[in-house]
This record gives sequence, structure tokens and C-alpha cells, in this order.
Amino acid sequence: MATINDIAAKLGISKSTVSKGLNNADDVSEETRKKILETAVELGYINKRQQKKSKRLCILIENMDYDTPNQFGHDIVLGFKQMAEPDGWTVDIIPISIDFQKLTPYDIFMMQGGYQAAFILGMSLLDPWMQEFRTSAVPTVLYDNYIKSNPNIASVGCDSQEGFELAVKHLVQLGHKKIGLISGPLDSYILQARYQAYLNTLSKYNLEINDNYIGLGYYVAESTKKYIPRLLDEGVTAILFSHDVRAISAITECRDRGLRIPDDISIIGFDDLPMTTYTVPPLTTIRQDRTALGKCGFYALSCLLNKVTIGSILLRATLIVRGSTGPVPH
Amino acid sequence: MATINDIAAKLGISKSTVSKGLNNADDVSEETRKKILETAVELGYINKRQQKKSKRLCILIENMDYDTPNQFGHDIVLGFKQMAEPDGWTVDIIPISIDFQKLTPYDIFMMQGGYQAAFILGMSLLDPWMQEFRTSAVPTVLYDNYIKSNPNIASVGCDSQEGFELAVKHLVQLGHKKIGLISGPLDSYILQARYQAYLNTLSKYNLEINDNYIGLGYYVAESTKKYIPRLLDEGVTAILFSHDVRAISAITECRDRGLRIPDDISIIGFDDLPMTTYTVPPLTTIRQDRTALGKCGFYALSCLLNKVTIGSILLRATLIVRGSTGPVPH
Repeated sequence: MATINDIAAKLGISKSTVSKGLNNADDVSEETRKKILETAVELGYINKRQQKKSKRLCILIENMDYDTPNQFGHDIVLGFKQMAEPDGWTVDIIPISIDFQKLTPYDIFMMQGGYQAAFILGMSLLDPWMQEFRTSAVPTVLYDNYIKSNPNIASVGCDSQEGFELAVKHLVQLGHKKIGLISGPLDSYILQARYQAYLNTLSKYNLEINDNYIGLGYYVAESTKKYIPRLLDEGVTAILFSHDVRAISAITECRDRGLRIPDDISIIGFDDLPMTTYTVPPLTTIRQDRTALGKCGFYALSCLLNKVTIGSILLRATLIVRGSTGPVPH
Repeated sequence: MATINDIAAKLGISKSTVSKGLNNADDVSEETRKKILETAVELGYINKRQQKKSKRLCILIENMDYDTPNQFGHDIVLGFKQMAEPDGWTVDIIPISIDFQKLTPYDIFMMQGGYQAAFILGMSLLDPWMQEFRTSAVPTVLYDNYIKSNPNIASVGCDSQEGFELAVKHLVQLGHKKIGLISGPLDSYILQARYQAYLNTLSKYNLEINDNYIGLGYYVAESTKKYIPRLLDEGVTAILFSHDVRAISAITECRDRGLRIPDDISIIGFDDLPMTTYTVPPLTTIRQDRTALGKCGFYALSCLLNKVTIGSILLRATLIVRGSTGPVPH
């Protein structure tokens, strides 16, 4: 374990300057402070003064709402805290913008905060810290993201393949043969995984894979408007959606076009958001148990903190059958 | 939660008979005892008298040695106990034969033993209990096996895909292009997974996939003798093996044929058994950290016991480069 002496020796400065830099004292220049912090991370220094205060974890959130029970992140945060707090951990919830990530290296942020480990929610492949996770020395668990080969990083998420297999099996039992996919763009790990799961599952059920049955677009309402008529023209009778929000937008779009769900078209979402029971008809969807996902996040961090170098934990998906799926139209 | 009353009512017999049946008293016929146990499992009865004695888990082993440190199962069992025992669990290690499985339904075995959950090592798709796991109500974690959709069952294992990607990357850097696979037959979940990982990885690296580069056989020495010359005739310069034991047998076979490793052929195993450092040359292999696998098994059981319905935990694979791999021959 590196000491303040090691940092001082490496930089050729005094111990007291190093100590001031590590503790953000005013009388150290910004440039020196930065060098001290970067060297501290490089040498594996642990700030005991901050760490001793308590066992501290953080949940870092970007691009996901979590304040109220009907928001996606709420139950994930809750589940994580339900496991961590009885075990003696303090858990801070911190929104992290892309700009902040550009200013502050991840390992330095964690060291300065005195955090032993982090659970990361909502980042996309475009977030700067996603690059830093490749080499980070901090135990870190990513929800719906995956980093290759770094033993300090693990991934948790819901099994997309299992979810799509349950959905397609249900549709095949209802007589559907042409099954489409409407999804966000493939610029995130999880959307790539769901896209691949869609292809694997159709292939497993010997159903036609056709680019014209697939619609990928960033803006929800716009891509629904564009792809629903296109897929129907192709003879698609059931559509899987990468998220409930897109499936719900499709319900509105179909109603506006005078299409009946499920008589004319069957629709299946992904997530089981609270609002899916209130749509007309209520949405058939693949459920991710968000509280359990939060708990998984803590189990995964516990593994890493105990040097059990797991790569991933996958939570089971379940299919919740409601009113938006029915027999194939004649 | 079902009571003794519920079992008695369902079978139309007295409470005292049910109690005797549950506790293996001598004065109940074998037939009645069986009915009582099956009904108890069906109704979800928990034998509190046995359960209260202590928190009890079992590791059920079939087809895997674990008594001494150089045997495959030893460190898995050790890792599991290292997590479970400090947490207050008693862990019994019980070898389970196929004949025993035929005589005793799994859920009844677990209830009678007063076990809350089990970690299963070494079973193949042919073991009778593998069928019962599809519907079992007992929290159960399988090493290197997978059961679909049952929320009471989870899987742990080492990431075969990650392992083969590291191995093939290493071989490609050494100039190899024709890479073969010698494996046991595809009658086990994990051998199917490794076979698929081999195909995926070659495809990812744009290497030729050719049935003639692959040898599958039950008997280790026999299939080594058969496939080594066949693959060499095809121009294969490096071979991946499904297990170290097969790779070590190939070292002997190559020596007998006057072939030099790695000058004439490169060889990579899977497991990193203790003996791989003592072969001549020492074996390059994909490491499964067996102690960590045992710990993973306990984490997975903890998830299930807390109603966090995970499907799988994958441990990271690492490549241990030793002397059995070298540059492609000219």
C-alpha cells in the first residue's frame, strides 16, 4: 500500500505539500494538486482519513430519473440501499453529468470522496468515464453496461435473451409469424444486446429475419410514427419494443390510425414500468424487477470488494401478459 | 406456509401419522411415508424442527473429486465454505450418485435433510435431478449448468467466451490462423457453451471455421490419439482444449510422435489445474479461479435466499501464458 512518503518521493516534493494536496488545502496550486492526486491513484494510495469515517459507497447516475416511485431508477436505488445500509454502508446518490466527467478523472473522484466502490446507472457508450472504466482500479458495478477483462469492473442487468425468448414463444403460441422490432439506436451496450437477442430468438424459432421488420431511431414519437406503418405494410402482426416508453407511444399511434390492439396488431414492451397497467389496453411487457436489480448491484459490489472477480450477474426476465397481445389477425 | 394439518387434511389421515412420516418413524408404511413427503413438498411445507437446529446448506457432488488440494473440486468447496461458515451456516458435503437420484426426489431429499439451499457440482445433462431442477422449489445453484426460467435456480461458472477470446487473441498475435478444438462430447451444458464460444471467437477474428479442425470424443487418450494427427494433417498449428486433462494428454501424444511443443504445434488448456505448471513444457491455459467459483456459488445462493431471482453469475476468465504456445511454425 502506497503512503504519503511514496507520493512525495515520486514527485520530489514535501510530505506536507502532498498531505495538503490530498485534502484540498487552499495553499497548494491547482497544478500541483492535480499531480498529487494523479500520482496517488497511480501508486494505489488510499486516503485513510476519509475512508475511516465510515464504510462508503456511491451510486452515480447519469440520464435516469429516480426521485419518485414511478421513475425508472427509484426502485433500483431503493433495492441497493436495502442491502447496503443494514450491512453498515453509507450510500450517497450522485448525479454525474458528461461535463463533470470531462473535468474529473473517475478514480480521483472516488478517492477524494472516500468511496470504496460505486454502482453506475444510466451511462451510455458516449460517457467519458466509460473509457476510464477499462483501466480503473476501483471496484465498480455497471448496470446494463459491460467492460471487457478489467477484474475491478462487473456488470448487472436483466437477461434480454431470456426476455425475448419468453415474448416470442408467447407470440408464436398466438399464431404470429412476422415479428418486428422497434428500438432506440444501437449506440448503447444494452440496445445492442437486445437487438442481438431479437435476432437470436427469431432464428431459434425459425422465423423470418428481415431488415424491413426492424426500425431503429433516436426520437421516440418520430420513430413510432415512421416505423409502425412501414412494418404493417410488410405484414408484421406483432412488434417487440426495446422499452415500454416506445411501446406506449405505439399504442397512441395505433389508436390515432384507427388500428385496434391486439386485434390488428400485438405489442410487447420491455421494463414493466408502473404506468403499463394503466394504458388502454394494458401493456404486455418483459419485466425487469428493478428492486432486485438494485440488490444485484450490491451483491456484485460485495463480490468485487471480496476479490471475487465476477464479470456479470444476469437477473431473470419474466413476461407479464396483459391486453396488448392477442391471436394473429386473419 | 403449509402446516401438518394441511397435509393431513389433503391425504385424509391423522396429524400424528403425518408427523411420523415427516420424521421417518418406523411405524409408518413406506408407501404412506412417500405420499406424506410428496404432499409436503407439493404444499410447500417446511420442516421447522429440522430447520431450527441450524442454518444448513449442502454441496451435492457427482462425478468430481474434492478430497485433496490437487483435485478440481477441492478449492470450489473451500471457497464456498469460506463465505458460508463465517456467516453462520453449516455446510454438508454429500456425494450423490445417479442411483441415489433415481430413488429419492430432490425436493424431498432437501426437506428431509433440513437444508435451506444447495450448491450442485459436477452433474451432467444425464443426471435425473437435472430434470427435477426445472420445477424445484428449493433455492439451488448449479456450477456449469443452466436451467431455464425457474426463479429458484441459478447458475455460476467461468466465462467460456471471454476465455476463448483471450486465447485466440494470444494465438493470432503469434501468427496462428488455423486453430483447432479438441473437446469432450457435447452432452453437457458447459461443453456446448465452450464449443459455441470457440465458433463465435473464430468468427469474430475472421478465422476459418472448419469441421475438420474439430475433434469431439468421450475417452481422453483415445480421442487425443485420433484427432492430433488428423488436425495436423489439415494444417492446424494451434489447438484449444476443453479441459487441461485433454491438453496434458496431447503433450504426451505429441512427444511420442516426435513433435515439439510449441515449435511444431501450440496447445492451450482450460482450467489451470495445479499440475499444469509441471508439464514439459508448462501448459498455457485459461484459468478458472476455483476458490472464487466457490465464493460465487455462495453469493448466488444468498441472492436466491433473499428472493433476488438471478439466472447466472459469470466469473472472469484469465489467460495464463506458459511454455506450450509459441509463434506459428514456418
